[in-house]
Amino acid sequence: MTDKINKIENWLRNHDGRFAYIADPTNVYYLTHFKCNPHERFLGLFVFPDHEPFMVCPELEVGQAQASAFGREVIGYRDDQDPWTFVRAALESRKSVSGKIYLEPSTLPYSKALALKTLYDDVSFASIENLLASMRNIKDRSELAAMKKAGEIADYAVGLGIKAIKKGRTERAIIAEIEYGLAKHGYSEMAFDTMVLTGENSAAPHGYPSTRQIKEGDFILFDLGVVVDGYCSDITRTVCYKYASDEQRKMYQTCLQANMDSIKAAQQGLRIGDLDGVARQIITDAGYGDYFTHRLGHGLGLGEHEEPSMSAANDSKLTTGMVFTIEPGIYVPGVGGVRIEDDVYLSEDGPVTLTHYPKELQIIS
Amino acid sequence: MTDKINKIENWLRNHDGRFAYIADPTNVYYLTHFKCNPHERFLGLFVFPDHEPFMVCPELEVGQAQASAFGREVIGYRDDQDPWTFVRAALESRKSVSGKIYLEPSTLPYSKALALKTLYDDVSFASIENLLASMRNIKDRSELAAMKKAGEIADYAVGLGIKAIKKGRTERAIIAEIEYGLAKHGYSEMAFDTMVLTGENSAAPHGYPSTRQIKEGDFILFDLGVVVDGYCSDITRTVCYKYASDEQRKMYQTCLQANMDSIKAAQQGLRIGDLDGVARQIITDAGYGDYFTHRLGHGLGLGEHEEPSMSAANDSKLTTGMVFTIEPGIYVPGVGGVRIEDDVYLSEDGPVTLTHYPKELQIIS
Repeated sequence: MTDKINKIENWLRNHDGRFAYIADPTNVYYLTHFKCNPHERFLGLFVFPDHEPFMVCPELEVGQAQASAFGREVIGYRDDQDPWTFVRAALESRKSVSGKIYLEPSTLPYSKALALKTLYDDVSFASIENLLASMRNIKDRSELAAMKKAGEIADYAVGLGIKAIKKGRTERAIIAEIEYGLAKHGYSEMAFDTMVLTGENSAAPHGYPSTRQIKEGDFILFDLGVVVDGYCSDITRTVCYKYASDEQRKMYQTCLQANMDSIKAAQQGLRIGDLDGVARQIITDAGYGDYFTHRLGHGLGLGEHEEPSMSAANDSKLTTGMVFTIEPGIYVPGVGGVRIEDDVYLSEDGPVTLTHYPKELQIIS
Repeated sequence: MTDKINKIENWLRNHDGRFAYIADPTNVYYLTHFKCNPHERFLGLFVFPDHEPFMVCPELEVGQAQASAFGREVIGYRDDQDPWTFVRAALESRKSVSGKIYLEPSTLPYSKALALKTLYDDVSFASIENLLASMRNIKDRSELAAMKKAGEIADYAVGLGIKAIKKGRTERAIIAEIEYGLAKHGYSEMAFDTMVLTGENSAAPHGYPSTRQIKEGDFILFDLGVVVDGYCSDITRTVCYKYASDEQRKMYQTCLQANMDSIKAAQQGLRIGDLDGVARQIITDAGYGDYFTHRLGHGLGLGEHEEPSMSAANDSKLTTGMVFTIEPGIYVPGVGGVRIEDDVYLSEDGPVTLTHYPKELQIIS
């Protein structure tokens, strides 16, 4: 069993915990190295202050759960069985002291909280999410190694995308070239749907790639990431095709300045909201404040988006060991959008980027 | 605004509804054609019996929401703002009669149900999921057209995968060839992670593709699907490489019989659990009952898995207009696994398959 589960057991002892019910597949993976996407099926890891943990998962995943680092009781159920029958029996066999039941309110479906409630006469729910986020926030050496590798592959992928730019190519065709090039090297797991947005499409920060063909004077925006040992990278680069207008150059240089200055400012102890402010001030001063419509970035790790949220409203402080994205963007309807995103690890010696693809403006001819 | 939202408004009038809060992105898409993956951000569509509906979504998605078929008030919030402030204000401006608040308990996070609860002194929650599932269950002409096209592309993709089989090729390399081949034709949206499992890996129904190289005598199992206009296909085919043992042939023929007989049996009015039973009986009679570890299939549509669940425990009946998968499988540890999956539309004239890739055993040389 992993040290991480021991940590939760200890924490439950100090926080009046009856048990913790962990259902988020990424948290289950973090604690056990058991990789499972249960879709609508039931997955639950139950951790106690005073008993052995157990896991309930679909019958067809039991073998993989048993082969994981979990090393404790795994209970399978078939599709025609109610998993809560097994949960109830296993909970009864571990008669817990009274205390709070800890769960993950922001991801646990309401119906599962209700189902748990019916098992107890009186029950008090509390959140274990801050504990899990604080554990996942601080990356250890092996996690960092995976993320460095994921960053290197993301750099390589951007290079593939830029090489694939050709007159008349569509956004989707460029994505195909990137993912095929990666897969030929054995890198087939993307962290999220690869995004290539061109021209006016690039002005939608969360646009969907289409069959739009590249035109001269387009911004071409790449946003992609890969997964290594479960850990994600996330990079964005923007280039121009054939030429760049004065407006595009100004947008690009402003965004680049915001990216570089906020990376430099990402030091231990800084209020996270103030880091967003560093980038936002630069973009606002250049007259684009209304066109930077999202937060500066997000935590990165097993999740493509995780804590901390790098938003103006976040009062928490940057801490050594965190990995987060810094991704200022400027989206001008009718002109297009620029975003420049790096993954940053906050080391004891300050911020270290895990993505290294060059950032000066490239005009692809 | 879409007829589907009108239908919900009518239903709320007849079911003591104060309003419905719809948060599942797929249901939001179904009702509005607004495609949004909000990740951890807030997305909510609020529908009333007696007022105009409204939607709250991230600021950076507002343009796309306004351009959708929704055609009513869209409220954006920035990353440094609390979306619930906007929800509260919009709810207050639509002073609803008392009544139940309908939501989606099986996907709505517990924290969001709690947040809604704090807005009201007394509130009674109920589920709108059965209504939404029953609407989504029955496909109309345009939905069926998309799913037919998705089925055709899935057939084509299996062909690409079979053409990509070569001595020494890895599972991941074959996936790369399939997805590249699709993307070159403009089909880049997969319904789920493409699965190619070979040899002993194929014995895990939900295995993860690896860098294992094909060996002679392997089962090679393809499970993949694409998305057309939001609608999914899902096909599985299994072939043998170079030769097939007697055991493999028996597994294959048993699985094929189970696939074909249950497709034939899928007639209007049949209890869904009994359809699972048709396939299970054939597999059990052949001595493989313990190796068919999952349900017969699942509903298909905007979701890669949706209602109805084609499991032995399902007492509902097959209804004209449904689309579902039929995918018996036999997984023998040490030998490998066979699964043969088709997408089936239940027409007024009986079951019609939307996937057509040939099913007789192929030995690839």
